[in-house]
Amino acid sequence: MIVVMKPGAAPEDIEHVVELVNEFGLKDHVIYGTDRTVIACIGDKRAVEKDAIENAPMVEKVVPILAPYKMASLEVRKEKTQIPIGPEAFPVGGTRVGIIAGPCAVESSEQIMQTARAVKAAGAIGFRGGAFKPRTSPYAFQGMGREGLELLAAARDETGLAIVTEVIGTEQVALCDEFADVLQIGARNMQHYPLLEAVGKAAKPVLLKRGMSASLDEFLLAAEYIINAGNPNVILCERGIRTFETYVRNTLPLAIIPALRERTHLPVVIDPSHGTGHAGMVPAMALAAVAAGADGIILECHPDPERAASDGAQSITPTRFEQLMARLKRVAQAVDRDV
Amino acid sequence: MIVVMKPGAAPEDIEHVVELVNEFGLKDHVIYGTDRTVIACIGDKRAVEKDAIENAPMVEKVVPILAPYKMASLEVRKEKTQIPIGPEAFPVGGTRVGIIAGPCAVESSEQIMQTARAVKAAGAIGFRGGAFKPRTSPYAFQGMGREGLELLAAARDETGLAIVTEVIGTEQVALCDEFADVLQIGARNMQHYPLLEAVGKAAKPVLLKRGMSASLDEFLLAAEYIINAGNPNVILCERGIRTFETYVRNTLPLAIIPALRERTHLPVVIDPSHGTGHAGMVPAMALAAVAAGADGIILECHPDPERAASDGAQSITPTRFEQLMARLKRVAQAVDRDV
Amino acid sequence: MIVVMKPGAAPEDIEHVVELVNEFGLKDHVIYGTDRTVIACIGDKRAVEKDAIENAPMVEKVVPILAPYKMASLEVRKEKTQIPIGPEAFPVGGTRVGIIAGPCAVESSEQIMQTARAVKAAGAIGFRGGAFKPRTSPYAFQGMGREGLELLAAARDETGLAIVTEVIGTEQVALCDEFADVLQIGARNMQHYPLLEAVGKAAKPVLLKRGMSASLDEFLLAAEYIINAGNPNVILCERGIRTFETYVRNTLPLAIIPALRERTHLPVVIDPSHGTGHAGMVPAMALAAVAAGADGIILECHPDPERAASDGAQSITPTRFEQLMARLKRVAQAVDRDV
Amino acid sequence: MIVVMKPGAAPEDIEHVVELVNEFGLKDHVIYGTDRTVIACIGDKRAVEKDAIENAPMVEKVVPILAPYKMASLEVRKEKTQIPIGPEAFPVGGTRVGIIAGPCAVESSEQIMQTARAVKAAGAIGFRGGAFKPRTSPYAFQGMGREGLELLAAARDETGLAIVTEVIGTEQVALCDEFADVLQIGARNMQHYPLLEAVGKAAKPVLLKRGMSASLDEFLLAAEYIINAGNPNVILCERGIRTFETYVRNTLPLAIIPALRERTHLPVVIDPSHGTGHAGMVPAMALAAVAAGADGIILECHPDPERAASDGAQSITPTRFEQLMARLKRVAQAVDRDV
Repeated sequence: MIVVMKPGAAPEDIEHVVELVNEFGLKDHVIYGTDRTVIACIGDKRAVEKDAIENAPMVEKVVPILAPYKMASLEVRKEKTQIPIGPEAFPVGGTRVGIIAGPCAVESSEQIMQTARAVKAAGAIGFRGGAFKPRTSPYAFQGMGREGLELLAAARDETGLAIVTEVIGTEQVALCDEFADVLQIGARNMQHYPLLEAVGKAAKPVLLKRGMSASLDEFLLAAEYIINAGNPNVILCERGIRTFETYVRNTLPLAIIPALRERTHLPVVIDPSHGTGHAGMVPAMALAAVAAGADGIILECHPDPERAASDGAQSITPTRFEQLMARLKRVAQAVDRDV
Repeated sequence: MIVVMKPGAAPEDIEHVVELVNEFGLKDHVIYGTDRTVIACIGDKRAVEKDAIENAPMVEKVVPILAPYKMASLEVRKEKTQIPIGPEAFPVGGTRVGIIAGPCAVESSEQIMQTARAVKAAGAIGFRGGAFKPRTSPYAFQGMGREGLELLAAARDETGLAIVTEVIGTEQVALCDEFADVLQIGARNMQHYPLLEAVGKAAKPVLLKRGMSASLDEFLLAAEYIINAGNPNVILCERGIRTFETYVRNTLPLAIIPALRERTHLPVVIDPSHGTGHAGMVPAMALAAVAAGADGIILECHPDPERAASDGAQSITPTRFEQLMARLKRVAQAVDRDV
Repeated sequence: MIVVMKPGAAPEDIEHVVELVNEFGLKDHVIYGTDRTVIACIGDKRAVEKDAIENAPMVEKVVPILAPYKMASLEVRKEKTQIPIGPEAFPVGGTRVGIIAGPCAVESSEQIMQTARAVKAAGAIGFRGGAFKPRTSPYAFQGMGREGLELLAAARDETGLAIVTEVIGTEQVALCDEFADVLQIGARNMQHYPLLEAVGKAAKPVLLKRGMSASLDEFLLAAEYIINAGNPNVILCERGIRTFETYVRNTLPLAIIPALRERTHLPVVIDPSHGTGHAGMVPAMALAAVAAGADGIILECHPDPERAASDGAQSITPTRFEQLMARLKRVAQAVDRDV
Repeated sequence: MIVVMKPGAAPEDIEHVVELVNEFGLKDHVIYGTDRTVIACIGDKRAVEKDAIENAPMVEKVVPILAPYKMASLEVRKEKTQIPIGPEAFPVGGTRVGIIAGPCAVESSEQIMQTARAVKAAGAIGFRGGAFKPRTSPYAFQGMGREGLELLAAARDETGLAIVTEVIGTEQVALCDEFADVLQIGARNMQHYPLLEAVGKAAKPVLLKRGMSASLDEFLLAAEYIINAGNPNVILCERGIRTFETYVRNTLPLAIIPALRERTHLPVVIDPSHGTGHAGMVPAMALAAVAAGADGIILECHPDPERAASDGAQSITPTRFEQLMARLKRVAQAVDRDV
């Protein structure tokens, strides 16, 4: 890190910072510039609580140099990680873009089987569906629980689709690990550390959604928690951020795809359903995500969106999904991939 | 809610929406305007998954009319709720503004006792300190756990200060409920529903921090979760939101104080430490919060901020705290309150 | 618009609002619901200063129903507008996606001619370059002025590329209108109304950039200003918004492409250079924009970005541009368009 | 500035950056750390287009060290600047907090005189009112122009209040400079550089509003433009920023008051009317601003807000204003100031 002193810092102020830096196990390197003195600190700085130095007299600011994560970074592994999911071991992060579709919530056997067959026929490789729902309102539908997981497993057994389902508490990790193929950590739980550690000890890969206002460092540190706990199979998922925009439920920042590529070896999946909140915008953003280099798309598909128990406004019908798959295939091939 | 149809909606489109509305148990009321047809829906709409209607043909948008929370709203209770905390049952929400101070993390017995005595002497009524720390990095200090809680309890026994400590997982709720006086839900956990339900079953009051990008409705729905689970003693805490601003760690939106007053009976506490991230800005924002009508202030105070295990940059020293208390008292009296 | 009354509103409060509504030339329609009374207001509401009603006693909120713009809306024209630009009258908004490239600022004849020839050879249809630069710092390079415009015109005469250049004040409108083919209104000037009116009286089409925190309504109202002043040829341009994200200079919200399609007949161009701020992210976002349905791309291209007088960090070289064009062509064809 | 190289940068990559740095007239200072090489660049860096270096091979990022403004900074002047305004030369930036009130727009002689007398009697020192209105919609009321300025001047002649009025184009600067006492630059025009230069050549002080998503550096650079053009009398005004919050029209970040104090000698005024958008929140935020150290408050006051030609929702009545002044006086005195 670099400590920038205020103009007029006295030799004893600089000396005081140098002592603090040394106390933290770092080597100092003082540079006297035209307007400012800066102190470069050399050593492995990840463990240091750096911003405390900001409190020292005449310090203007502290600038970190190193990224705070390690296992998730390109420094540890240069090639993209491929993560096999589901009974057919589809490799997320490989040449083919993995399309995962399904309803927001598991509502009934019929809804699940009908949708699973339709998305499989259209070319999806994964099936999403929530058995435990984190709902903003305590009065909203909270999910079918274990029964929902069993319905999902049945759909996998018939179709071969990889089952992706959300885990909302440490209590459900073992159960979901048993039934599902990929454990999803929702945006609201991205910094729920006990849960990150719990899925870090699970057998199945994790799909980690970015928090709706998480920085890139925070997102990759959440992945680091999971990897650090023992599970290297983390799929990153962008699902939109909260901004001042109101014509969308969230703003979907696709530039995160190249930005993550420059920082991490983990594969990146885009969720255009939460990422926009409106079914009408889902196709355009799915196509854009594939063109920008996404390794997968996860989207909501429901046979009767007007009557969906949740997220109806952002779900597309199986018919629309089939049409979209044809278009996704063409764009994927135009960027030397496939679906 | 109000359903707004697109221009050119045909009678059968309107008819279709009316049927959906009726299916959801609502009465319809169609209004034909100059440019648009709108359908007002009458009935108790809290349980309805409204935005699904957005998916119906020729619907332009759906406008909710009712707030989605109930127990937390002024409709249930008009006067401000007073919540007694700690051994001296200080009433948060009463005329006196409750000042809660202490270090980010419990580090040692000496640090805790020294700080607790100092802030008590200066007039604080509560003492904050984390025994379990939700840290962004898996490599950062994670807290002392049960031992930290025992140190906090010892500080209470000597000083009479109410102990406020964060609970980061459902596993710790019982333990914290035993040792602490107020259970804090951190910003990162504001939508961690199993935890909200767990503290909703605890005996002690809850200090609920607003998520760093939570809307007002989401904040009050989180409170609703806790109240709905059985614990009516919820203290709301604003700790800053994430915006484009970089001169602060978070942007502290004090207008939330009058905004919450218009919507809820729950008391409101402000955290100027996380709310700014810089010790030098804490006094100005604490004074501003009291002037704006806050029921309490919670801030970080550490005897040696440069060497704090966490959040050193935003912690003030006991000496500065004492000076601040004198100024807070004057401002509180100027708005007909006290500290 | 809809006026929502607070619970407990008395008949005289409702009567007072009805009188105000009638005074504003609107017909009232009162609906008594289970929890709330709402007053639907019928008539052409665009001219009314609606939110003043919010100040009336017992009014909870005022919900607008109509979009505030008219000429820019689909209600006036359903098919997409095609706007011919430059000596070859390339139709922006037609099947081919128009690619516009060039340096941030005009620096010299050699720089301009070299870049113009290169981008023309690669398939661009427009050439961008600033003669007047709105710089954040008064100490930064401010542009070559008239001489810069002459260099741009010379480049057009040789290559046939349409010249797009920014106008930063009403004083330069006539001059730019003489030399350029498209007048660009920069993001900082999107709500500079005298300038909007001035280009509204110019002969050439206008490329209107969205302000970095403008809402969709504000963006389309700015277009409305120009159309209303007499110039119907407005090309909308998204160049990124300001959010909390720091890995990009701006967050580029591509969902605005389908969102604008649902609201306006005007063509939409995307600027991935300002939209990301980093040359390395420009190709991915240009490809994504075309996949999402953009009618054009405008990007920065400089023969020696490291030494560019401005915006070097986000400029790509002519070699990279040529490679990108080949990829853009494939993606454009995959969505039934071309470049 | 500091250039941070990527891990694995070769000696020739470092050499290349050193050459660029030298070419820009800066001295290099290379530091080889454990994980990264960084190049500190020494010299007066304000004129350099630094981020272009980001484009050089193996450069990870470029970190600026110096603030980009100079005349507005504490380095030039340590004590706070006092700016006398109006016929009574009230010193903005002195011990007394200057209260400026008045309607959004000048509508009639009666409205202006009635309001001016009322706010003067209550203790205001300035009177605000727009003769030229920058309206988001071309269909909204655009102001009375010169006639409005004459009405404002008449109000000053009778009451002695300093007249603050907005200038929206270079064309109006001379006229406003003749009639008004303070020239206001609105938030939408904060980066309208020709206008900044024009008021920089005017005789009267300038009240510069922060753009709704301007960074602190951009805000102070806008002030720098005015000072650099010859007018040192710049009053900074915070009027709220655009964030995801919807219960307010803008989020009012009062921490900017201490943040500006640490960077600039210019006085700071707060606008709680635009800063919240709701009359009911104005008193709490005005009190908070004074407690936080504001040098002035500018707010909207209208005798009949329900029928105001603009901004009715955020205007308070003269009666409310009088009550607020009594409360502001008490809070000001509690922080050793007065109104």
